[in-house]
Amino acid sequence: MKRYWGEIKDPVHGYVYITEPEKEIIDSFPVQRLRRLRQLAGAEYVYPSANHTRFEHSIGVMYLAGILSENPNLSQHLSEDEPQILRIAALLHDVGHGPFSHIFEHLLQKFLDKTHEDMTTWVIQKSELSDTLNSLGYDPKMIGKLAVGMLHRSSRAFMDQVIRSAVDVDKLDFIVRDTYHTGAEYGYVDIFRLIHMLDVIDENLAVDLGALSALESFILARIESFKSIYFHRVGRAAQIMIAMAMEEAKDELGLVDFKSTEGYLALNDYTVWTMLKSCEKVRGIMENLERRKLLKCAFDQTFYVRDKTVSSIFSVEEIRNQVRDKIASEVDIDPCLVVIDVPTLPSVPYRHSVLLEPMEIPVFNKTRDGKKVPQRLSDVSKIFDVLKGFINIIRVYTVEEHREKVGSAAAKLLGEIPSSAKVSY
Amino acid sequence: MKRYWGEIKDPVHGYVYITEPEKEIIDSFPVQRLRRLRQLAGAEYVYPSANHTRFEHSIGVMYLAGILSENPNLSQHLSEDEPQILRIAALLHDVGHGPFSHIFEHLLQKFLDKTHEDMTTWVIQKSELSDTLNSLGYDPKMIGKLAVGMLHRSSRAFMDQVIRSAVDVDKLDFIVRDTYHTGAEYGYVDIFRLIHMLDVIDENLAVDLGALSALESFILARIESFKSIYFHRVGRAAQIMIAMAMEEAKDELGLVDFKSTEGYLALNDYTVWTMLKSCEKVRGIMENLERRKLLKCAFDQTFYVRDKTVSSIFSVEEIRNQVRDKIASEVDIDPCLVVIDVPTLPSVPYRHSVLLEPMEIPVFNKTRDGKKVPQRLSDVSKIFDVLKGFINIIRVYTVEEHREKVGSAAAKLLGEIPSSAKVSY
Amino acid sequence: MKRYWGEIKDPVHGYVYITEPEKEIIDSFPVQRLRRLRQLAGAEYVYPSANHTRFEHSIGVMYLAGILSENPNLSQHLSEDEPQILRIAALLHDVGHGPFSHIFEHLLQKFLDKTHEDMTTWVIQKSELSDTLNSLGYDPKMIGKLAVGMLHRSSRAFMDQVIRSAVDVDKLDFIVRDTYHTGAEYGYVDIFRLIHMLDVIDENLAVDLGALSALESFILARIESFKSIYFHRVGRAAQIMIAMAMEEAKDELGLVDFKSTEGYLALNDYTVWTMLKSCEKVRGIMENLERRKLLKCAFDQTFYVRDKTVSSIFSVEEIRNQVRDKIASEVDIDPCLVVIDVPTLPSVPYRHSVLLEPMEIPVFNKTRDGKKVPQRLSDVSKIFDVLKGFINIIRVYTVEEHREKVGSAAAKLLGEIPSSAKVSY
Amino acid sequence: MKRYWGEIKDPVHGYVYITEPEKEIIDSFPVQRLRRLRQLAGAEYVYPSANHTRFEHSIGVMYLAGILSENPNLSQHLSEDEPQILRIAALLHDVGHGPFSHIFEHLLQKFLDKTHEDMTTWVIQKSELSDTLNSLGYDPKMIGKLAVGMLHRSSRAFMDQVIRSAVDVDKLDFIVRDTYHTGAEYGYVDIFRLIHMLDVIDENLAVDLGALSALESFILARIESFKSIYFHRVGRAAQIMIAMAMEEAKDELGLVDFKSTEGYLALNDYTVWTMLKSCEKVRGIMENLERRKLLKCAFDQTFYVRDKTVSSIFSVEEIRNQVRDKIASEVDIDPCLVVIDVPTLPSVPYRHSVLLEPMEIPVFNKTRDGKKVPQRLSDVSKIFDVLKGFINIIRVYTVEEHREKVGSAAAKLLGEIPSSAKVSY
Repeated sequence: MKRYWGEIKDPVHGYVYITEPEKEIIDSFPVQRLRRLRQLAGAEYVYPSANHTRFEHSIGVMYLAGILSENPNLSQHLSEDEPQILRIAALLHDVGHGPFSHIFEHLLQKFLDKTHEDMTTWVIQKSELSDTLNSLGYDPKMIGKLAVGMLHRSSRAFMDQVIRSAVDVDKLDFIVRDTYHTGAEYGYVDIFRLIHMLDVIDENLAVDLGALSALESFILARIESFKSIYFHRVGRAAQIMIAMAMEEAKDELGLVDFKSTEGYLALNDYTVWTMLKSCEKVRGIMENLERRKLLKCAFDQTFYVRDKTVSSIFSVEEIRNQVRDKIASEVDIDPCLVVIDVPTLPSVPYRHSVLLEPMEIPVFNKTRDGKKVPQRLSDVSKIFDVLKGFINIIRVYTVEEHREKVGSAAAKLLGEIPSSAKVSY
Repeated sequence: MKRYWGEIKDPVHGYVYITEPEKEIIDSFPVQRLRRLRQLAGAEYVYPSANHTRFEHSIGVMYLAGILSENPNLSQHLSEDEPQILRIAALLHDVGHGPFSHIFEHLLQKFLDKTHEDMTTWVIQKSELSDTLNSLGYDPKMIGKLAVGMLHRSSRAFMDQVIRSAVDVDKLDFIVRDTYHTGAEYGYVDIFRLIHMLDVIDENLAVDLGALSALESFILARIESFKSIYFHRVGRAAQIMIAMAMEEAKDELGLVDFKSTEGYLALNDYTVWTMLKSCEKVRGIMENLERRKLLKCAFDQTFYVRDKTVSSIFSVEEIRNQVRDKIASEVDIDPCLVVIDVPTLPSVPYRHSVLLEPMEIPVFNKTRDGKKVPQRLSDVSKIFDVLKGFINIIRVYTVEEHREKVGSAAAKLLGEIPSSAKVSY
Repeated sequence: MKRYWGEIKDPVHGYVYITEPEKEIIDSFPVQRLRRLRQLAGAEYVYPSANHTRFEHSIGVMYLAGILSENPNLSQHLSEDEPQILRIAALLHDVGHGPFSHIFEHLLQKFLDKTHEDMTTWVIQKSELSDTLNSLGYDPKMIGKLAVGMLHRSSRAFMDQVIRSAVDVDKLDFIVRDTYHTGAEYGYVDIFRLIHMLDVIDENLAVDLGALSALESFILARIESFKSIYFHRVGRAAQIMIAMAMEEAKDELGLVDFKSTEGYLALNDYTVWTMLKSCEKVRGIMENLERRKLLKCAFDQTFYVRDKTVSSIFSVEEIRNQVRDKIASEVDIDPCLVVIDVPTLPSVPYRHSVLLEPMEIPVFNKTRDGKKVPQRLSDVSKIFDVLKGFINIIRVYTVEEHREKVGSAAAKLLGEIPSSAKVSY
Repeated sequence: MKRYWGEIKDPVHGYVYITEPEKEIIDSFPVQRLRRLRQLAGAEYVYPSANHTRFEHSIGVMYLAGILSENPNLSQHLSEDEPQILRIAALLHDVGHGPFSHIFEHLLQKFLDKTHEDMTTWVIQKSELSDTLNSLGYDPKMIGKLAVGMLHRSSRAFMDQVIRSAVDVDKLDFIVRDTYHTGAEYGYVDIFRLIHMLDVIDENLAVDLGALSALESFILARIESFKSIYFHRVGRAAQIMIAMAMEEAKDELGLVDFKSTEGYLALNDYTVWTMLKSCEKVRGIMENLERRKLLKCAFDQTFYVRDKTVSSIFSVEEIRNQVRDKIASEVDIDPCLVVIDVPTLPSVPYRHSVLLEPMEIPVFNKTRDGKKVPQRLSDVSKIFDVLKGFINIIRVYTVEEHREKVGSAAAKLLGEIPSSAKVSY
């Protein structure tokens, strides 16, 4: 790796040493812009200190990519340049996020049929980052794909998996960082043990079962963080309100009309919040947010089903709208005062919910003579076997004054969920 | 509560303020002796820093009993004196421990048919502590029972449960403290949320489901700590060796011949280690311990069964001995070179394993109008539903040179465990 | 105190329990606005994670005011209502801050002759907060003064000093919080020992010398934080640039033309950053900030003098301008490319620099019979005796390309500082 | 460096990876014995959790020696083997300590004219460690000298200074570790910044002034730790009692009669505590210790003088004895009930007190073109200039019942210290 240019002090990881090329990339506009994208928009209404941004997270992810690259199990498969390439890709993995991160992704998906990963690749390949990377000798096309874990190098799936998999450096950073800044205490996971016990089997990253305790802790931490931070009832109310405001003001403010990466990157939490405040149409929502008058949760049901049937039903917008309309008519209020919220939905998408899709983390046992024997994690971890399933949450939000009536109407309508599915986490 | 005499600085809880009576009890010989009983004998062979003692743990438990007593849900049920009484009982809950804590309990049970709780009650009622308590106006008889959660006051089960239940102040202290001193990272649990969300339903302590995330984290932390600290393969080897040495040297050193609390309390880690070293018969074991030449684990199988059948089989010493003899004869070595280790056994008892018995933690939901509705934790927490079962571990230890042969013999003999039971945590 | 409404989880202090009135005040617009005022504007260019805001700080200060109110030394002097009043005043102590906190104070002072404390009193007394306080039964006039430590109750100076003194709850919170979020490690001070060892002597808060170690650590932590965080060479460059941008754009954007508290409170980091970006005149500065092209420090001299002479010289803007012009003409560049920066100046004021004024913290010794004997801290602490003096820092900033020449010119001009004054901390 | 054998989890430093040779040395008896030597004997009477041992400290020092060896400033001067050699020397730097560490050193010095460093060299060169080192290809003679910083290689003073200097890896480990296990909070120092900013000037280790804040924090941390941990009034009382017991029982127990390293190494905290308890002559002292009936401090004066005169007076045992006798006769009690305690004395020696000798830490400034300009730390750090002086503490201890009278007598006799010298830290 290139010589270090200097160091950055991070409260989570300590000193992060950065190279000259990294320094130059960090100081580019698309990366510096991440300072004005909060990591957990909405969560600050539950955890006031949760004001960390995608900027420090990105540096943390770069750092962990470096640590993982030094793991001999992996480094033996890497060329001399690849550790640096992995670090750069990790650094850039979030440059495509829009204002309020996952909340804006809702608009991206609904109106442009894009995810933030699509935007990341686009920004890397088409903004000034492309020039910078070129001038430093890196291929923007390749970095753009690797940054979202879609390089698809033949026989080298592990490269993508460093950035994007069930135990990638992105998740390993945010599980600890989100805990640090929220104070929520669910994410103190021994991530360095996990990193140290990753190995390459065939072409895939896999976890040595010697780290099974750390892995199980990590999985539970993700679920508890999901329930307590990412999908917290109150934080979620704030997210929904911001999403509503952005969607309503979309045309007037031209939020999805950008033509270039420059246009897109001009959007950040600061500018969009300011724009929304000045937009007559949604001023009411913004003023409520600025007085913490949030939507109230009138109905909240968590249930557990292994198969996808129940959750799929609610992933269809029409069905959700029908349910919404039915509740509203029952209570006799404007349907726009009722919001059906389902985390497994792309409606207000949340990347973290990816966890909740059935997943199988590759694991293996090392025999005494050093052979690595792949295992099914479900077979060796009863905990995982349970946790890998779905959490389905259905919530109905409304304004304070209609809370009770909407709650009753929702219970009447939605209370019929089969009791076998009611067992929650 | 009485005015504070002063404070003790604890790295885990910060400042612990203590009253005059507490000060006097802390400075008694039976409590000061706890400075020479390590909390996790054997664990230091895995985690070198795990040298904390029952002394600071006892102060921590007293502290948490005080915090819990201030929880309004509980305090409304307490008389003016009871917070102080609960703190004193908590302070004394471990005074009955023998050298190397749970390892000595093996001898207590096998030769005297006593548990360390029996000894705690005995020490409180029959040592100088009795005089001290009397002079301070407390009833040693009552404190002696409360300290082990066996006061059995009519309609006041919660008093005992503060000290001894699935979520008692003992476990809440050691889960965090053991993590702090080992560095194992599995026990950073939000114990203050748990304490704050405890309530009394009928006469029992119950957890408000608003703290479900903290509760699930606590349960997983206990299991991961069990696997990684208390029942770690290597630490366990050291425990077995100390247990063997004490059992073999028992008669020569008169380890279980004490007639008075004074005689019992003269035994501690320092004196017994020194005695064992000077005892010809077990010098070999001690010298191996002092060079970290530990028994090796030749066979290790963890399996999960809800019912007690499998684990029960191995709880019978005769059966274990048969298995041991069979393995030894197969390999043609002295049976004393083979140790069958099963954590659910009382043979080398481990208080922490109590967790592993099926248990049901009382929980409840608070409705919007403040009514508390009891729930079954298994119904609302899929995680708990799994975790409450048994972990069964069967291990076969032997000396290094016979490791491979013993391993094969054990696999042949014990490999037949039905695969349906092999699903482990 | 009133019953608790609920709790807030703070990563620094843990659970902060809040009362109904506090909840209502927290949810007001002027307090919620603090979410959009960063605590350490500019510091994020050195410490990327330093994104915490005045909002969580204010809650932390309220929390510590409550802890201090429970200290028996103080509580015996308080009426039943005063703990709640102190907590509310602490909560509101920063509501008068402008965008980028101390950086905007520069404009306040220069153009309106106001400090942020003046604004705090004004906001409390003239915004919606006044109605809220009134409706809750509190006197906005009184709270407005107490919040800035200027209540001046006869014989009750300690009330003000809880909020504003050398060891007040404001400083005790931020010393730890700034360390937590920057990762700078200089501020892990035992603030609870300090709070516990505060007492009232005559009418003043004073520190029991039993906490001398904690006090000395606190003082050093403040100085090291000053050098490494608040007045860090790089963070300072960012602050200067924001100050320059705001000053230049002031008239065009009407930054100091507000007529009401509403007008003032509309300004926050989000809105002002967005306004500055859209202002042609200062776009250059903003674009540089958004690419981390910061002013460079060409000359940096720290020296130590007890008397005020040297520092006073530079507190006169005319003198600073002369020096600036002289350097610029020597190098033959536009004077606006040279910035003379002196922390003890009000020019770009920094509240933390208050520390650097000579101060004497009241301390006392407790004799064995409980008498409190006042002492001079300088007499008992050699460390304090040194630290209480001035740090004088003179820096000259310029753009990168002129760095060397400006550095030489500055050295020539300013290098003559008497060597006796050169001894720095 | 050799491939890693495995890792050790340390709560202070995280994972410590160890090589095969290190593993073998760690598992030797002289190193494993350190598990039974507490790091801070006596301190547990103030900080109950301070039960950490020289064992984990030694592993921590080895770890930091490795980190420092990787610092490019140093590594460029090291041969391929030297990082491993430095780690081994660091690992062994404390193997010569006797029971209760520095307390036993009192006997070593008084009766054998040896320090613990002498013993370290002796143990490395004459115990089984010598064979182990030889068989691994390391020279016990060289390691034995390097382990105490007395290798004295020509032009390579930095080798010794890694192990023993004002900013060596020993001090860097214990400043943090002692804070961690006591909870005292004075030692959270950014030691990694210090290690990263060490460099070699001529042949000496020197600190880059870019780490001046970390260095000043380190120096203050050492002083506050000295006052609050190592030389705490109460912990010191316990140390004195153990020292008295060992000295009185010395002949009967043959504590200094060992003829071989084996004989010496048989002494540890466990064995000597047990021996002392069984020794009639000192049973009284031990029983007092076991009930925390400690000597009381009747007189305590801290004063500050730069020159050595005052402290030197008390370093002469005869003079201390005279003072003791005079106080005893004044009060009319047995002189053996009075103890004069002075930390700068070798009487009950304390290695940490080395700090308190005037010292000058080599520092340097890096100019913009990379030249390193040596500086005098006193010139650039006013803080250091003060702190490098002496703390002189004179204490008079006695039993509780005579506390007051002895206090008065001591004040009369010792109160005459010139007020100019009374200014303390």
